[in-house]
Amino acid sequence: MSKTTLAIIAAVSAATGAGVTAAMYSTRSEKKAQAIASSTSVTASSTTSVPAPYPGARPLQVKAIIPPVDPAGLFQYGFPGPVADLATRNALISSFDRRLRNPSWVAEHITPESLAASEGDRKHSVFVEDPSVPEKFRGKLKDYFRSGYDRGHQVPAADAKWSQEAMNDTFFLTNMCPQVGEGFNRDYWAHFEDFCRRLTTRYPSVRIVTGPLYLPKRDAVDGKWRVSYEVIGNPPNIAVPTHFYKVIFAEDGTTSGPVAVGAFVLPNAKIPNEKPLTDFEVPIEAVERASGLEFATKLPIQRRKRLCADMACSLVIKEYADRQKAFAKEPKQVTAPTRSSPRNASL
Amino acid sequence: MSKTTLAIIAAVSAATGAGVTAAMYSTRSEKKAQAIASSTSVTASSTTSVPAPYPGARPLQVKAIIPPVDPAGLFQYGFPGPVADLATRNALISSFDRRLRNPSWVAEHITPESLAASEGDRKHSVFVEDPSVPEKFRGKLKDYFRSGYDRGHQVPAADAKWSQEAMNDTFFLTNMCPQVGEGFNRDYWAHFEDFCRRLTTRYPSVRIVTGPLYLPKRDAVDGKWRVSYEVIGNPPNIAVPTHFYKVIFAEDGTTSGPVAVGAFVLPNAKIPNEKPLTDFEVPIEAVERASGLEFATKLPIQRRKRLCADMACSLVIKEYADRQKAFAKEPKQVTAPTRSSPRNASL
Repeated sequence: MSKTTLAIIAAVSAATGAGVTAAMYSTRSEKKAQAIASSTSVTASSTTSVPAPYPGARPLQVKAIIPPVDPAGLFQYGFPGPVADLATRNALISSFDRRLRNPSWVAEHITPESLAASEGDRKHSVFVEDPSVPEKFRGKLKDYFRSGYDRGHQVPAADAKWSQEAMNDTFFLTNMCPQVGEGFNRDYWAHFEDFCRRLTTRYPSVRIVTGPLYLPKRDAVDGKWRVSYEVIGNPPNIAVPTHFYKVIFAEDGTTSGPVAVGAFVLPNAKIPNEKPLTDFEVPIEAVERASGLEFATKLPIQRRKRLCADMACSLVIKEYADRQKAFAKEPKQVTAPTRSSPRNASL
Repeated sequence: MSKTTLAIIAAVSAATGAGVTAAMYSTRSEKKAQAIASSTSVTASSTTSVPAPYPGARPLQVKAIIPPVDPAGLFQYGFPGPVADLATRNALISSFDRRLRNPSWVAEHITPESLAASEGDRKHSVFVEDPSVPEKFRGKLKDYFRSGYDRGHQVPAADAKWSQEAMNDTFFLTNMCPQVGEGFNRDYWAHFEDFCRRLTTRYPSVRIVTGPLYLPKRDAVDGKWRVSYEVIGNPPNIAVPTHFYKVIFAEDGTTSGPVAVGAFVLPNAKIPNEKPLTDFEVPIEAVERASGLEFATKLPIQRRKRLCADMACSLVIKEYADRQKAFAKEPKQVTAPTRSSPRNASL
């Protein structure tokens, strides 16, 4: 089996739940056993003549090592993964982290037209566990119960009002992370989501990728960097991210024009409304290093603009009660305790 | 683009570094714009008649929603990942976690014949950064320098003595994790690796998957579960796992016979030699839940035996100095401080 074939099989398995791996597994182990049996040396090698590189040259002798072992034989038992549980829905595309039981990223698209429609109502949507994730890796409703954290939408429900079905798409737990409620999910983060929607008054097409981060902090006592995060559920199941990122692509409506790019990292903590949004602006590479993901490998530098240089990146503060009236948004969870802002976290 | 197509593209991208995504990206955004323009309603819908389900029934009306947004359009900028950097080498296959800069698993295969050969010598191998991982996600040699941790092989060098090239394969940093040296990597863990090799005296073919874990501990003060791990390097780069797992498949030499399966989880800490190995035996499902991986989805229950019921799972203690003489194994790093055994960690 060639490396390329293997990579593709492995990758397809990663998306399909390793379903095809076993079917495509060749009996290389058996061939190997024969190769070993027919050779006196354990490191079997065969010598092959290949055509000379130029006329008159001596033929090259290529020594092909036949290894005595077959690490890929493991895949007869299934490909280990990781499997990203890519979910392609009308309102969003999400990729799930089976170890942390949170999405690793959720992508959405908003336009002035999509936000103008008002077919979906949050009152008719309910939070649901995602059956597309195997039960043992799934985030559960009971994990959030009495955890002190909100079930925080990564793609906001308010961005998918264009149909009830689309809004329902945003209520899968694969679109949620545990978020501090008061002062964050219900306040600063909500204002930030509103900022993203307001971008459509200037840009006809806006793409947003949202997800969790787990960042190290420098220990004041021993000076070492440590990542530390709570895990909610009993038994513990869902990681509580230390931070959240949004990477924003604000487009001019063409597929070749300039793109205003903004990247933001906010702590999963109470943030005063007075704090400027630009305090949380970071280079896109910082989000990439922290998340292990890449967001703009195919976007040429010459097409990029800095979002916060193209326009003023500032929030409009609407109080929670007012927003509730406007959007009939219900409180999702009990209030989380106030947390100090981890400003010394490292990206 | 269908969900299936998308999943496969995404998955292939995940293995190939997102290289093919952009090439296969369709201009769905453009088609979408036309669809929106030609519709008075934002949530465009078309009604199609399909054949009646039984004779005499009224034809069904199926409403196909054309969403006003295109979340998959993000992929014009590149597929975010995660990319697992699958490395297929003669001695091992490894899958890399770009966020934690450690492998998520490394698979190997050993046999009595492969271990009998002695073509490779550790003296001629050097630790190397893995160029197949993009620079910004790569573990670096300098991250380990003066970290207090060993560069701990996941697939041991001593398992790949059958050729120098194979042994060199084990020295890529994508086969390493930061491990406590004295009392663990150089002692208990080394005895455990020796135990795995000794399995080949009974089983003609042994497959082993090794990797790191980051497990939560219950906080004695507030009763909450938290994951906490150090990150080494400056700036912080490589996570220090709290635990390591090995999943062992001991085969009878056929591809349909019984397989003795053993799963072990050991803390990344000093462990007294007297501690029985069976103290660290766990159900394979526990490793799966903790790692987010699956190891035996295609191995029918009726083919499985429990390794430690099939034979005695116990270590043979060789002192470090003696092993050094036998294998010319050099000390890799400065001694790490003694750590208490995190026995209250949760799987």
